[in-house]
Amino acid sequence: MAAGSTYGTLFKITTWGESHGRGIGVVVDGCPAGLTLCKNDIQSFLNRRKPGQSKFTTARNETDTVEILSGVFEQKTTGTPISMMVWNKDQHSADYAQIASCYRPGHADFCFDEKYGFRDYRGGGRSSGRETIGRVAGGAVAVKILEQMGITFLTYSKSIGPVSIDMNRFDASEISKNALYMPDAKAAAEASKYLTKCMEEQNSAGGICECVITGLPAGLGDPVFEKIDANLAKAVLSIGAVKGFEIGDGFAISRATGLTSNDAFCIKEGRISKKTNHSGGVLGGMTDRAPLVFRAAFKPTPSISAQQESVRSSGEEISLSVHGRHDPIIVPRAVVVIETMAAITILDALLANMTSRLDRIIDFYQNT
Amino acid sequence: MAAGSTYGTLFKITTWGESHGRGIGVVVDGCPAGLTLCKNDIQSFLNRRKPGQSKFTTARNETDTVEILSGVFEQKTTGTPISMMVWNKDQHSADYAQIASCYRPGHADFCFDEKYGFRDYRGGGRSSGRETIGRVAGGAVAVKILEQMGITFLTYSKSIGPVSIDMNRFDASEISKNALYMPDAKAAAEASKYLTKCMEEQNSAGGICECVITGLPAGLGDPVFEKIDANLAKAVLSIGAVKGFEIGDGFAISRATGLTSNDAFCIKEGRISKKTNHSGGVLGGMTDRAPLVFRAAFKPTPSISAQQESVRSSGEEISLSVHGRHDPIIVPRAVVVIETMAAITILDALLANMTSRLDRIIDFYQNT
Amino acid sequence: MAAGSTYGTLFKITTWGESHGRGIGVVVDGCPAGLTLCKNDIQSFLNRRKPGQSKFTTARNETDTVEILSGVFEQKTTGTPISMMVWNKDQHSADYAQIASCYRPGHADFCFDEKYGFRDYRGGGRSSGRETIGRVAGGAVAVKILEQMGITFLTYSKSIGPVSIDMNRFDASEISKNALYMPDAKAAAEASKYLTKCMEEQNSAGGICECVITGLPAGLGDPVFEKIDANLAKAVLSIGAVKGFEIGDGFAISRATGLTSNDAFCIKEGRISKKTNHSGGVLGGMTDRAPLVFRAAFKPTPSISAQQESVRSSGEEISLSVHGRHDPIIVPRAVVVIETMAAITILDALLANMTSRLDRIIDFYQNT
Amino acid sequence: MAAGSTYGTLFKITTWGESHGRGIGVVVDGCPAGLTLCKNDIQSFLNRRKPGQSKFTTARNETDTVEILSGVFEQKTTGTPISMMVWNKDQHSADYAQIASCYRPGHADFCFDEKYGFRDYRGGGRSSGRETIGRVAGGAVAVKILEQMGITFLTYSKSIGPVSIDMNRFDASEISKNALYMPDAKAAAEASKYLTKCMEEQNSAGGICECVITGLPAGLGDPVFEKIDANLAKAVLSIGAVKGFEIGDGFAISRATGLTSNDAFCIKEGRISKKTNHSGGVLGGMTDRAPLVFRAAFKPTPSISAQQESVRSSGEEISLSVHGRHDPIIVPRAVVVIETMAAITILDALLANMTSRLDRIIDFYQNT
Repeated sequence: MAAGSTYGTLFKITTWGESHGRGIGVVVDGCPAGLTLCKNDIQSFLNRRKPGQSKFTTARNETDTVEILSGVFEQKTTGTPISMMVWNKDQHSADYAQIASCYRPGHADFCFDEKYGFRDYRGGGRSSGRETIGRVAGGAVAVKILEQMGITFLTYSKSIGPVSIDMNRFDASEISKNALYMPDAKAAAEASKYLTKCMEEQNSAGGICECVITGLPAGLGDPVFEKIDANLAKAVLSIGAVKGFEIGDGFAISRATGLTSNDAFCIKEGRISKKTNHSGGVLGGMTDRAPLVFRAAFKPTPSISAQQESVRSSGEEISLSVHGRHDPIIVPRAVVVIETMAAITILDALLANMTSRLDRIIDFYQNT
Repeated sequence: MAAGSTYGTLFKITTWGESHGRGIGVVVDGCPAGLTLCKNDIQSFLNRRKPGQSKFTTARNETDTVEILSGVFEQKTTGTPISMMVWNKDQHSADYAQIASCYRPGHADFCFDEKYGFRDYRGGGRSSGRETIGRVAGGAVAVKILEQMGITFLTYSKSIGPVSIDMNRFDASEISKNALYMPDAKAAAEASKYLTKCMEEQNSAGGICECVITGLPAGLGDPVFEKIDANLAKAVLSIGAVKGFEIGDGFAISRATGLTSNDAFCIKEGRISKKTNHSGGVLGGMTDRAPLVFRAAFKPTPSISAQQESVRSSGEEISLSVHGRHDPIIVPRAVVVIETMAAITILDALLANMTSRLDRIIDFYQNT
Repeated sequence: MAAGSTYGTLFKITTWGESHGRGIGVVVDGCPAGLTLCKNDIQSFLNRRKPGQSKFTTARNETDTVEILSGVFEQKTTGTPISMMVWNKDQHSADYAQIASCYRPGHADFCFDEKYGFRDYRGGGRSSGRETIGRVAGGAVAVKILEQMGITFLTYSKSIGPVSIDMNRFDASEISKNALYMPDAKAAAEASKYLTKCMEEQNSAGGICECVITGLPAGLGDPVFEKIDANLAKAVLSIGAVKGFEIGDGFAISRATGLTSNDAFCIKEGRISKKTNHSGGVLGGMTDRAPLVFRAAFKPTPSISAQQESVRSSGEEISLSVHGRHDPIIVPRAVVVIETMAAITILDALLANMTSRLDRIIDFYQNT
Repeated sequence: MAAGSTYGTLFKITTWGESHGRGIGVVVDGCPAGLTLCKNDIQSFLNRRKPGQSKFTTARNETDTVEILSGVFEQKTTGTPISMMVWNKDQHSADYAQIASCYRPGHADFCFDEKYGFRDYRGGGRSSGRETIGRVAGGAVAVKILEQMGITFLTYSKSIGPVSIDMNRFDASEISKNALYMPDAKAAAEASKYLTKCMEEQNSAGGICECVITGLPAGLGDPVFEKIDANLAKAVLSIGAVKGFEIGDGFAISRATGLTSNDAFCIKEGRISKKTNHSGGVLGGMTDRAPLVFRAAFKPTPSISAQQESVRSSGEEISLSVHGRHDPIIVPRAVVVIETMAAITILDALLANMTSRLDRIIDFYQNT
């Protein structure tokens, strides 16, 4: 608690910046030395959340070009902090003067004023979606490290408003082909229609994002408070607009029975495995070697241009329409945020896990 | 991550103990000085999770009598760490010899072996439900502090297996009257029938627990990583058997629209308020003064005496029936665990929040 | 441990940058909202450590002009992270090519290679004195907050090599008048002569820095591991080239007796006070309301152009002369580093101390 | 800061207990699994700080017998928290009634009252030397782990009041032979005479403790704030009565020159080494493979039966003599406290250091 801009213990990110300030950035600390890293490794992740890529994203025109300011020497990480930033360019701060004294429904304006006494009202300030740029840049480093260890992420929109993907049509290659990052072309088309209707009605939609992580060793996560799913839940809920987290069968498992929800152990290809994966790859807060599967529920974008009832900070009741350039849905651009926050969490657990057994520690130091 | 037995930043608990070791305990650190505290303040909370209170709880006979070993002088907390413990008494460790080399489906046995090289297999060791004794004892202190500030908790079983409470029949006074801690007598009766059937079938059930916190000031929680809902999610997922967390409208909000899910602001009794509470009392990771409402999804008790497929650690496939004294459902006894973990999280945020504004800090030191 | 670029708990700084990278920066997190802050508040502190101000500082020509990139809106801190940076300008990286494969005596080159496998050898990389720019910028914010609470710092060189100030000639107004930041003009003149001789001999000198903090309330610091003097010791030893820390009578007290080293309590102007201050303002790890007095011992600048014996990383023994632009003494420019690191530590303790008593917490929330 | 009873990041101890409460204890979290551990491993360390071993230690009669309550199964650590405690037995709380309302010079009584509003005045409560029992029990585990990696500690009294050991007479085998833990029999005899005189005069003495750690790999410690010497300084200053810390040549180096204080690198037995060790085994905050040497300065025991001036909390000036059973010197019994706190710090750095290089992390996971 307090000083809430740092996340992680051994692999740690500290983010800074507001929507309409000078820029947005991150300091990655604890990155192991020797990782080959260039600007493009980061940029490719930032491009997945960049605005302006479809009619479903804000028209704010930002290239979000990252600069690496420290921590990399001769194309390799040095073990010292990696500072990265993106300059803000296309701010239309004047758009926000109207809301300086109003509280937008579904936004944190009121809470900021109550907590801090005033707020940077331009574009939501620190609670803007642009805050996630630092997370994505930092998490891109984590993803790259994990990839070298055979750990991979598949993240996508599972549902947009009432439209869910059909697992029978699941096609991972579809994800990058549609603007909604759905692994099901038919669902993506239906969801597009639904979103278009929302936009016409000056309304917005929510959705669910799913992340599948494969290649994890068993035993990641630390009982009892640093369980891997507990930390993933925190990572996911720390993202703006997320209202729910579930792992494996999640809420549905509450209606199942022990017989139908326990995963039987078996021997597959000579090693201990599970016949099913209701647990979502986590037992007792530690990875169980099955794919780790979790979901995040996003609320609809709170900024809508339809009229809403609200108040001024002075205590006057008003009717308000939130103008500006807003996405009608948060989920597609949040997919990469979910993925990178998960990657930081997993990497942190992986590093911590190196210290769990004395024999391995002794081996480590004898071999180095 | 790592060294995962401590939770909290300013108000901090460190728990220890295994199901069949000498005892279970907690050290509460950072408790403000001057709180009147006696054994009974703690015991009344422990009694809510004590076994043997109904046919739906394990027959293990433990009084779970707490001892306060430090941190209290002349009935008041001194500001120094409060050490509390409960001695284990009714262990039947022999029951577990059979599973020393087996991996029980739905349990963490396999993960413990993978992570640490071996495990204390007696009664689940550290992953036993008894581990929560330390949480409840520590959290009881937090609840008592919060009560003095007008912050109260109402926690109950919202559903047991397929049986949910009917909000039209919601009656808080019912919660303590039935063994299932449901605020709806009719649902409790139905759920009892369902559980009895599960027990007859050597099976088990899951359920959902809901917690409502009232009296919170606005602004608790620290953007962007120490959001109050992010920390609640971590607190909740750190409890064994929890597979999901949601706040306010939770997963359902993903199918709503901005117009139906935003809470309109209004003026009530002269102060800024909200007309609805889809947000569950949290906006942008900070409390918004409305009741904070969250839910936790529990999986069915993994220990069932019905036959299940599994393996030995040596790699042999086996059929296994988990004997011992197990609850057919975790939720009712977990209600107080959810409540106390939430209390620790809220208190920690409340303490951290004191430092958010310079004018208040200056006032604080001028007045003391 | 690990990820060592963040310091502080509630008021937290994260620094980044290397001597010859793009720049040096800091993210200040947990700064209370409402502090009036402008660039110049920071710059005046950076100017105290800027090179090129006398013949005793490196000729490297850096203006070290700070930019504030976030966290300040309408000239006030918003409670969100304050990102600040200084661009590196006058790097002569070519100077360092010669030492890429050598280990300079007294430097961390060897340790960096051992720990990380390679290093950014240009100008010492992360272990350069320039790293302290982030500390000073962040600490300047802390000093400004503390000033508003009546807490002030007086920091100066107590000795340079064998030349110590004479307490009978102590004159605080002298500190800013001489290049060595000594509060004794005569000692400063002698020390200048000593340093000139060191420079002629291609040699360097060490010294002792003293810091006196007045206006502190009693009770800052948290038993038993977060004692205020323990945290000051860490803060001070974390600064490059510091080899010792002492508080109050320090090492000399080890030769005293209880009768001569205990400070008698008395009543002065109606409040409890002490007749002497051997304790240096700290008893049991908490401030005792007397001025807090501590000292840091600095080793001589390790970079000297005189010939020294050393080795190449390849294992060849060599003779080496460290060229480049080095200060013959670290102490004068480190004075402001000591002061700002102390300020961060004190402010952090002051914030944490707000949560020590239940009655005050309840008052705080009733009044706000 | 805040909640100050936990120390360490990956290997973590949380201590609790007061001088006259029920007992004193510690929870060790993050201890790697697989360490063979029994009560006696801990007891042998506690015996080194046990009272009643010579005329220079308090007559309080405590066996300080440790109990291990969790975390060990079949004589091996399981990776879960190790709870250990010692029951208080020979309290004479009545001795302290007289000081309930007085502030003893040199003690923290006044600061506790200021911070917490009141205090447990019996025997100093939490600020008693008995608090270190938890540290020693926890640190004994760290020492045992480090021993298995070839890292050893030699800790002793370097000076008692004005009597210092003569390095020409240094004999490690002497340390355990005299009550003062001095590695020089002649100095020990002189120091005994000095202490006897102090006792006759109802006075007390201070001293200096030195610790030498051998067998360390290079690179332990994390720039820039988690330097190994910075953390040792914190560990040491967190021990009651310590007023100074220095490493290597310490304060004396401030009067040296670069030429005399830099350690030349050389090749010894085919590997890079240093000709001297002015640095005390640490360069740039990382171990340099030479023995790590540091010292702690202790003030004289503040409890003396000679008359002293003081005040009551009510504001009345009084004359006071501190009765009770006090050691005339703290240093000899603190030797093992210094050693164990250093061991925790070193082990924590050693664990963190495993994550510094990507290639080694990849190797670790490929081999396990």
